Amino acid sequence: MSPETSAVGAASGTRSLPHPDREDIRLAQVLHALADPMRLRIVCALAAAEDELNCADIELPVSKSTCTHHFRVLREHGVIQQIYRGTAKMNGLRRDDLDALFPGLIDGVLRAADLQARRLGEL
Amino acid sequence: MSPETSAVGAASGTRSLPHPDREDIRLAQVLHALADPMRLRIVCALAAAEDELNCADIELPVSKSTCTHHFRVLREHGVIQQIYRGTAKMNGLRRDDLDALFPGLIDGVLRAADLQARRLGEL
Repeated sequence: MSPETSAVGAASGTRSLPHPDREDIRLAQVLHALADPMRLRIVCALAAAEDELNCADIELPVSKSTCTHHFRVLREHGVIQQIYRGTAKMNGLRRDDLDALFPGLIDGVLRAADLQARRLGEL
Repeated sequence: MSPETSAVGAASGTRSLPHPDREDIRLAQVLHALADPMRLRIVCALAAAEDELNCADIELPVSKSTCTHHFRVLREHGVIQQIYRGTAKMNGLRRDDLDALFPGLIDGVLRAADLQARRLGEL
C-alpha cells in the first residue's frame, strides 16, 4: 500500500484512499478484480471516458452499496484510482500502471468485453 | 453444458466430464478461472506444452485435492478440456474456443504472467 491512507488523508485535511503501488499490483488480483460483469462494465466505461467519472456517472443495475463495493475492489487491486475532489469521489483507470506492468492486457480485456456484448446483443 | 456428462459417459462405457459449449463461455467466468496464481501456472504450462498434460505433469505447491479443484474450475469455466484416456485424466487448453471468442485475450494473459514471473524472479 502507498503511504496515502484514509487516516493520513484525514489528518492532513484531505481525504485520500489507499491504493497499491505499481510494483505491488499482481496479475491474479487484477484478473480477480475484472472477473465480474459489473466491474467489467465500470472498467469499460472508465476506458471510454475522456476524463475521470463519478460513481453515479456509470449506470449499473445494482444497489449503491454494491456499486461502492465494486469500485473498492477495483481500487484495492490496482485497476482504478479513486480521488476525492471536493465531496465527489472521482474514478479513473490506472492505464499507465497496467500498461507498463501487463502490456496489452487491458486492451485485450476491453476488446473481449466489447465482442461479447455485441454477440449477446447487449450493445 | 454440452450433453456430455459424467452420467452419460458412464452409461456409454466411457468417462467424460461436463464442459460448457463455446457459446456458453463468458468473459467474467474465464477471468475468474484465471484469477489465481496456481491456475495461471496450470494455464501457462498447458500453453507451453505441445500435447495434453496429465495433472501430475504440472508441479504445484498444493495438495492433490486442491490441484483437482483448480483443474475443475478451469474446465467448468471453459478454459481447459479434461478427457479421460484410459485411467489418465488429460488436460488441454481450449485455445480454439477462447481465441475465437476473445481474440488475443489468452495471449495477453500468458504474456502478462511471463513478464510478472520474470519481474518477481520466479523464472
